[in-house]
Amino acid sequence: VLVAKLKISGFMKKAWKIGADDPRKVVHGIKVGLALALVSVFYYTRPLYNGVGGTAMWAIMTVVVVFEFTVGGSLYKGLNRAIATLSAGALAVGIHWLASKSGETAEHIILGSAVFLLSSAATFSRFIPTVRIQFDYGITIFILTFSLVALSGYRVDELFELAERRLSTIAIGVSICLLACILVCPVWAGEELHLLITRNMEKLADSLVVCVDKYLKEGGIDGDKEASCQNLQGYKCVLNSKASEDSLANLARWEPAHGRFRFRYPWRQYQKVSAAMRYCAYCIETLDGCINSETQAPESIKKHISDVCVKLSLECSKVLKELASSIKSMKKSSRINYLVGEMNAAVEELLDAFRSLQQADSVPLFESLPLVTVASLLIEISARTDRVV
Amino acid sequence: VLVAKLKISGFMKKAWKIGADDPRKVVHGIKVGLALALVSVFYYTRPLYNGVGGTAMWAIMTVVVVFEFTVGGSLYKGLNRAIATLSAGALAVGIHWLASKSGETAEHIILGSAVFLLSSAATFSRFIPTVRIQFDYGITIFILTFSLVALSGYRVDELFELAERRLSTIAIGVSICLLACILVCPVWAGEELHLLITRNMEKLADSLVVCVDKYLKEGGIDGDKEASCQNLQGYKCVLNSKASEDSLANLARWEPAHGRFRFRYPWRQYQKVSAAMRYCAYCIETLDGCINSETQAPESIKKHISDVCVKLSLECSKVLKELASSIKSMKKSSRINYLVGEMNAAVEELLDAFRSLQQADSVPLFESLPLVTVASLLIEISARTDRVV
Repeated sequence: VLVAKLKISGFMKKAWKIGADDPRKVVHGIKVGLALALVSVFYYTRPLYNGVGGTAMWAIMTVVVVFEFTVGGSLYKGLNRAIATLSAGALAVGIHWLASKSGETAEHIILGSAVFLLSSAATFSRFIPTVRIQFDYGITIFILTFSLVALSGYRVDELFELAERRLSTIAIGVSICLLACILVCPVWAGEELHLLITRNMEKLADSLVVCVDKYLKEGGIDGDKEASCQNLQGYKCVLNSKASEDSLANLARWEPAHGRFRFRYPWRQYQKVSAAMRYCAYCIETLDGCINSETQAPESIKKHISDVCVKLSLECSKVLKELASSIKSMKKSSRINYLVGEMNAAVEELLDAFRSLQQADSVPLFESLPLVTVASLLIEISARTDRVV
Repeated sequence: VLVAKLKISGFMKKAWKIGADDPRKVVHGIKVGLALALVSVFYYTRPLYNGVGGTAMWAIMTVVVVFEFTVGGSLYKGLNRAIATLSAGALAVGIHWLASKSGETAEHIILGSAVFLLSSAATFSRFIPTVRIQFDYGITIFILTFSLVALSGYRVDELFELAERRLSTIAIGVSICLLACILVCPVWAGEELHLLITRNMEKLADSLVVCVDKYLKEGGIDGDKEASCQNLQGYKCVLNSKASEDSLANLARWEPAHGRFRFRYPWRQYQKVSAAMRYCAYCIETLDGCINSETQAPESIKKHISDVCVKLSLECSKVLKELASSIKSMKKSSRINYLVGEMNAAVEELLDAFRSLQQADSVPLFESLPLVTVASLLIEISARTDRVV
């Protein structure tokens, strides 16, 4: 019993922490409850009930299934659901009409084979990347509606009335969903993406500086060790955020203009920027590997280049931070060219330091060349970002 | 019209290529069609129809929604759906019974607030990582069933009958799904994961060799340039496969024992192995960056170490391939320790070559130390893999 109690309290603590870290998640839960309560009000009110009939369950279903955390997600699912229901319904009614012209046995065969063929083809089409990204959910609903109408029509013979009812309830469900989603504390996928990218860029800048510091001044400042350790891990977020970035960028495309983002905002550019950032993060990962490597450069050489290295890393992180803030404010920064110039100067300085080190042991260059790579990458990023802002 | 025609033919070609590359995807489409046809047979046969009643639509819905590409996916969704329907139904009936004891107004309030509270809480619980990974779909169905029963019960008053019907139709749907999924050319998530990991490991080995070759013998053999270019890109698969590996590992846990995989097979180990592989791939990524870097080592030094470097990379890739084949056959390889020893010897040789190069320019070491890192990582991987096999 005690173990179970501990487990439950641990679970509750975790849940509480998630809620405290991001209150929007709690708000999202409440919004879903609200939308369902609204639907029930619809359901309880007699006159309305008579209007939409027993198919009111479709409204509930729509709310439960369509409601997503981000506005883009809800719009994507809602529009997919509406379009798929409409097209599949129309197609099914058409085939049904064709089938009813023939004899009863032929009708069975036509309907059965139509369901078989269409569902097979639609399921296969989900494997095509472009289709999957934008219409995966719609295809599920298409198959569902088509089979339901094609098969139930055989029994009911009130197809048009049924279709009208189903469409109206789905429309009610979708609109309640979207209202609750957009009006009450909306969470925009586009804004999430924007924040994620700028946050990751700042993390990258921090972890670059910390990483170089740690390598050169090993056993140095212990005071803010924990904080620096956290900073050091920052680049790992950049490495692992590809999946969430991709899905956010997809959902953002479904969103209307909001806030500072106009319609048809170039969301793909964010994906390109983050790919460049990942590229930098790979370098930092390797750099981090050297810290734990067994072969270390002799102290004397470390000292010789440490100042230049630290300077370079600082310049790099300055460029990154400037980029992050320019993305944040969505204005082209006037200082960025100057900072990139400074960074390139630091790279030259570092190369000079090496040239003057000709005769020494060759280990420390390993430490610096990733930085050079990082620097050249940064120039690339900055060139790309110009297009975004 | 011509543009549209070209677009359509391009789309068809793409679809054909996907089908030809992996015929199982076509088979999957046919399987879904088959399952739906089976359900329609159920639906058309009068005696059965009388048994399950108008709720036969639930069977269709279950098939459409539950049927996934892998067995693990279908099992995950099917079990989630069944358990969620059962528990939510029971809970809703209980609350309904409680509410019916009180007056009519109180009944409305109790039911409405129960729906609001439960759906809010359940939606929020989806943000808790452990819950989301295993029960995300189940929670959707839980909210759906609970709201449907709680709200419809208000009207129908034949709750038990309704529940019985819905459960029986869902059971029919799930069992048809699972039969079609497991009996007709099953695609096991576990096996997919197994193949993905071994394939990635081989790709990693190939691209390591090609990358080092390309760096040292620039402009060398042009004959198999395209093939080597493809090999070089192999490590990118390793970098990008995290998301699919995670989802496969999650689904694999739902699968029963099959083929060479027993129940409760340690799927997590695969994730660890692939994390280690990604770690290697980061190094190769950096190494690849040097090829395109502007600062190149002088030819003389390149020659001095090229033989040792190539040897090291070959040894590394041998170890990787041996690991891949030992994972494939699921036997501990007897040669692996020997190969790791050889690899370490090659590392030592490389270090010696550098020591004898004391006075030279320091650039080329940059090229080699990633290899040393790769080598040490490989030893780590091999240690970890021992546990898996």
